[in-house]
Amino acid sequence: MENFSFYSPTLFSFGRGEEAHVDQLVQRFGGSKVLLVYGGGSVKRNGAYQAVTDALRRGGIPFCELSGIQANPRSGKVYEGVELVHRERVDFILALGGGSVIDTAKAIGFGAVYDGDFWDFFTGTDITATMPVGVILTISAAGSEGSDSCVITHEQGNLKWGCRKTDVIRPKFAILNPQFTCSLPAYQTASGAVDMFSHICERYFTNTPAVALTDRLAEALMKTILSAAPRAIADPGSYEPRADLMWAGMLAHNNLCGTGRAQDWASHQIEHELSAFYDCAHGAGLAVVTPAWMEYVMEHNVMRFAQFAVRVFGCEMDFAQPELTAREGICRLRAFFRSIGMPVTLEEIGADPADIPDMVLHRAQKPGGFPFGSFVRIHPEDMRAILEKAAAANT
Amino acid sequence: MENFSFYSPTLFSFGRGEEAHVDQLVQRFGGSKVLLVYGGGSVKRNGAYQAVTDALRRGGIPFCELSGIQANPRSGKVYEGVELVHRERVDFILALGGGSVIDTAKAIGFGAVYDGDFWDFFTGTDITATMPVGVILTISAAGSEGSDSCVITHEQGNLKWGCRKTDVIRPKFAILNPQFTCSLPAYQTASGAVDMFSHICERYFTNTPAVALTDRLAEALMKTILSAAPRAIADPGSYEPRADLMWAGMLAHNNLCGTGRAQDWASHQIEHELSAFYDCAHGAGLAVVTPAWMEYVMEHNVMRFAQFAVRVFGCEMDFAQPELTAREGICRLRAFFRSIGMPVTLEEIGADPADIPDMVLHRAQKPGGFPFGSFVRIHPEDMRAILEKAAAANT
Repeated sequence: MENFSFYSPTLFSFGRGEEAHVDQLVQRFGGSKVLLVYGGGSVKRNGAYQAVTDALRRGGIPFCELSGIQANPRSGKVYEGVELVHRERVDFILALGGGSVIDTAKAIGFGAVYDGDFWDFFTGTDITATMPVGVILTISAAGSEGSDSCVITHEQGNLKWGCRKTDVIRPKFAILNPQFTCSLPAYQTASGAVDMFSHICERYFTNTPAVALTDRLAEALMKTILSAAPRAIADPGSYEPRADLMWAGMLAHNNLCGTGRAQDWASHQIEHELSAFYDCAHGAGLAVVTPAWMEYVMEHNVMRFAQFAVRVFGCEMDFAQPELTAREGICRLRAFFRSIGMPVTLEEIGADPADIPDMVLHRAQKPGGFPFGSFVRIHPEDMRAILEKAAAANT
Repeated sequence: MENFSFYSPTLFSFGRGEEAHVDQLVQRFGGSKVLLVYGGGSVKRNGAYQAVTDALRRGGIPFCELSGIQANPRSGKVYEGVELVHRERVDFILALGGGSVIDTAKAIGFGAVYDGDFWDFFTGTDITATMPVGVILTISAAGSEGSDSCVITHEQGNLKWGCRKTDVIRPKFAILNPQFTCSLPAYQTASGAVDMFSHICERYFTNTPAVALTDRLAEALMKTILSAAPRAIADPGSYEPRADLMWAGMLAHNNLCGTGRAQDWASHQIEHELSAFYDCAHGAGLAVVTPAWMEYVMEHNVMRFAQFAVRVFGCEMDFAQPELTAREGICRLRAFFRSIGMPVTLEEIGADPADIPDMVLHRAQKPGGFPFGSFVRIHPEDMRAILEKAAAANT
C-alpha cells in the first residue's frame, strides 16, 4: 500500500425528498445568490427543477439560470457561465443534473474566481480556489458529485480533457434522490452503470502490491452494480436498485477504492477519443473499450484477472489454467454489458474502424499524449491494437 | 434503504512518515497554539511523540501538554484539559494516541467552547460547536479518528456514556502511520481488531430491508480484518497487515457501512457495563459479549446470520437447514477471537457471573437504560440471558 491522502469533505444528503432542503444547504455553505446550471427538459419533466426552484424561493435565495448543458460538456457553456456569475454577482453554483452539468458547474466555479482563461487549468495550471458548488444529482453515472475531477471538451480542436485533480473542487454538498433517476431511459441507466463499473476497474487493475482492503471494497461495489443495474432496467420505477446505483456511483469515483494504489485510466483515455469523434455516450464507449483493454493486457497479471473473475463474477477458479478463469471473467463482463443493452463493438456505437489511425493520431497531439496508463503503459501501437480488438470483439 | 446524511469532512493522511507534516495540517485548519493530548510512555517509546513535537517546533507552533490519559478515559482529564485550554489560550487540540486519547481530546474540544459543564453533552444537550481537533493515531481500534462519537467515563457514578453523535466533532484531520502500531502488544492489537469488527457487526445486523451495498462494504471490511489481524500478531513489525487494520478501523466507524440502515449497538451497551465494572479492554469485553449476543438473537433473522456465515467466513450454505449455517458463522467468529488470543467468556476477563444482576441494575439506572438495541430490543431479562450465555460460552 502506498501513502495517500483522502479528503472527501462533501456533505451527502441521500433519499426521497432531500432536495426540499437545498436552500438550507446553500446557506450553510455560504451561498446568498445562486447560478442554477442544468441541461434540458428532463429535470423539468421529472419534477427536480420545480422542487429545487421552489425550495430556493421558499428560502429567499435569488437565482439565475444557465441551461442547455449537453453530454460531453463544452467550453462555450463554461465561458457563458463565468460571465453570468460576474454579471449577476453570484456567489454559489448549483448543478442540477448528471456528470456533464456538474463538471460544467465545477469549471464555472474555478473559472469565476480566476483572472485568466479557465482552460489554463486543463493545460497544467493547479487549481487553488473555487466558488462553492452544490449538486442535485439526477443521473447515476459519472460520480462527479463526490469527485475531485472535471472533464470538459474544448470546442477549438475537439479536445476532451480533464483538469488537474484536486480536493478543492469537490462539491460542498450533494443531494442524491434516487427517484429522480427512475425516469431515465434504459440506455442511459445502462450507460451510467458501465461508467461507474469502469471507474472501479481503472483503480482495481494496479501493479501496487498489498491492496487487499481496497480490492475488497472495489469488489463490493462491482457486485452491487452487477445486481442493481439489470433490476433498475427491468423495473425502472423501483426505488431500491436506483438507490444502490446512485450511492455506488458516488463511491466508485470519490476515490475510496483508489487509496494507496497506482491507478490505470487507460480505458478512459481511449474512450475520450471515441466520444470526441462520435459523441457517443461515455458509458457506451467504455463498454466497448474496457473489455478490449482487458483482453489486451490480461497476460500482464493473469492472477489479478482471475481474482476479478472469481470474486466479482463468481467464476470457478481453474487452478491448473488460471488464464482460462481470467478470460472467463472478461467474457462475463462483456456479456453483462450486452445484457443491459450496451454496445460492445466499435460498429455498434457507429464508429468506423477505418478511423482508428486518426483517433490514435488525435491522442498523440495531446500534450503528454503517449504513453498513458499505469497497469500497462499504452503506446500508439497498443491503442491501435485495443481498438482493433474492440472492432472485432466476439460478442 | 432509509434516507441518510453522510458527512465525513476529515482529511486523512495515511502512511509512513506522514506525521512530519502535522504542523502544516494544524495551520491549514486554523491552529496557532496547540494542546497536545496523549497517554503514557508508549508514544515516547515508539517515536511518535518525538516526531510530532519535532514537527510542531519546526513549524513554530507553540504547544502545551496533557498526558496520562488511560483506557476508558475519565472525566477528570477532560476538566483538566478544558482548564488548560483556557489558561494557555490554546486554539487547537491535537490527540496523539488511540480512541481514549481522541475521545478525551474531542470532549476537551467541545467542553472548551461551552460555558457550562461538558458532561451536559452526555446527558442530552446537542453539541453545536467545538474547538478544532486533529489526530495522530497510534492504535487501530476505536475508529474515533474519523467518527462522530465520543465516549467518556464520569468518575462520579462510574458512568461510561457516549455524547450525542454529531458531525461537528469529527476531527479536522487524522494522520495514520501504521508503523506506530507495530510496537503494540499482541493483546492490544487483537483487542483493537475485535473492536473494529464489532463496529461493523453493530451496523450489519439490521432490520432495514434492501441494504445490499452497505452489506457488501461491511463484508469487505470484516474479511479484511479476519485476514490482517492474525498476520499482524504473527509478525508484529510487518507493515501491510498493520496498514489494512488501520484503514479498516477508520472505515468501520466513520459510518460508511451504516448509511441508510437502522443500527443495533446492543453489544456495545452491554460491554460498557463490563468495562465499567472490571476496567477490561473494550475489545476484550466485546469478544465476550458479541458472540453471546448473536446466539441470543439469531432466531430473529436466521438468513441474515447465514449470509454473515457464508460471505464473511466462507461457510457452505445448508439450504435445508439454514440455522446450522447461521450457527456455524457464530462459532467461527468465536473461534477467530480465541485464535487471536481474546477472551470469550466472562470468567476469562475476570468477571464474576454473580455480578450479572448488578450490571443489569447499573444499566437500568442510566437515563433511558432499557430497552436498547434495534435488531432485537433488549430488556433487563435479555441482557441477563446474554451475559449468562457469555458466562457459559462453549469455547
